[in-house]
Amino acid sequence: MTAEARRILIEAAQELYAANGVAATTPREVLARSGVGQGSLYHHFPSKRDLAAAAVAQTVDDTLGSAAATLDGADEPERRIADYLERPRAATAGCRVGRLTADPVVMGDETLRGEVSRYFAELIELVARAFTEQGLDAAAARDRATTAVAVIQGGYVLSRALGDDAAMRAAVRGLLELLEPAPTGPDERSRHE
Amino acid sequence: MTAEARRILIEAAQELYAANGVAATTPREVLARSGVGQGSLYHHFPSKRDLAAAAVAQTVDDTLGSAAATLDGADEPERRIADYLERPRAATAGCRVGRLTADPVVMGDETLRGEVSRYFAELIELVARAFTEQGLDAAAARDRATTAVAVIQGGYVLSRALGDDAAMRAAVRGLLELLEPAPTGPDERSRHE
Repeated sequence: MTAEARRILIEAAQELYAANGVAATTPREVLARSGVGQGSLYHHFPSKRDLAAAAVAQTVDDTLGSAAATLDGADEPERRIADYLERPRAATAGCRVGRLTADPVVMGDETLRGEVSRYFAELIELVARAFTEQGLDAAAARDRATTAVAVIQGGYVLSRALGDDAAMRAAVRGLLELLEPAPTGPDERSRHE
Repeated sequence: MTAEARRILIEAAQELYAANGVAATTPREVLARSGVGQGSLYHHFPSKRDLAAAAVAQTVDDTLGSAAATLDGADEPERRIADYLERPRAATAGCRVGRLTADPVVMGDETLRGEVSRYFAELIELVARAFTEQGLDAAAARDRATTAVAVIQGGYVLSRALGDDAAMRAAVRGLLELLEPAPTGPDERSRHE
């Protein structure tokens, strides 16, 4: 029961952080949403910071796990990269992790900031691995992976700014067109690198 | 004198918004930074919202003007696009406009949100014009311009998250490598489009 209460509290915090950010979310709101008792909250998470550290770490693990499921799959690397880029995203809502870079509580706390940093470092690594399989050397794969992750993060910013998910889709289409010029044979591809 | 006080107040607000965001900045702080009298503030800007609307509009105009100076120049379009992408940026500080998409006061106000939207719509238009000059059709130029603007916005997010301007530079390098595969002749370029 106690591990279950902990899980429910973390999930409630993750949902509230996604909707309103960490800075604007109070432990009282997490408690109300979770439905667990106040004693459980203070037992598992003596401070708001403890709860935030656990919930942000969980969001990072969830999001990296879902990216890895696509990027480390069995298909051709081109296909996996395209699948990752074209994944349906609620773009006007913003990225659950990316938005934390604008959250003053997150950026002012070394642990929370470390989690956000871990997310992007590992995500770039995952994408770079797929580009390496395509034959890029390590430095070029890393640059291209940083570009790809930036397109997704920038796509979220543009979709929020313009109030339209179409901006994310346009940013991804523009990148895919650069990554996959038609026709795509090995000879053709080698001319780009 | 009165137009001068207005300009000084707007500049003070722009600087405080860039540092702390709109939501966290009070008219009192703007007053203190500007050094003008309280009467001037309330004469020019009866509400915090009036001041924010003027200061955000000014930031959008300044930033678009500086982008247009590079993107509408006399050089080859390839050169202008590369110059725009490679412009030195204090990336870990975040984009002065892009960060506003995470500011609750901005996103909750139709006028302020409209300014942020105007910025990105016009910036994408500016970049798309340069790609059109390179021979892309309107739809492809628009997609590619959205990708380029997303790379810059995402580069800011990654640089903030990783605490390192190198992420912006890597994202831009990765895009330039896709835009300018060596060698770059007209025949070579036409194969990408």
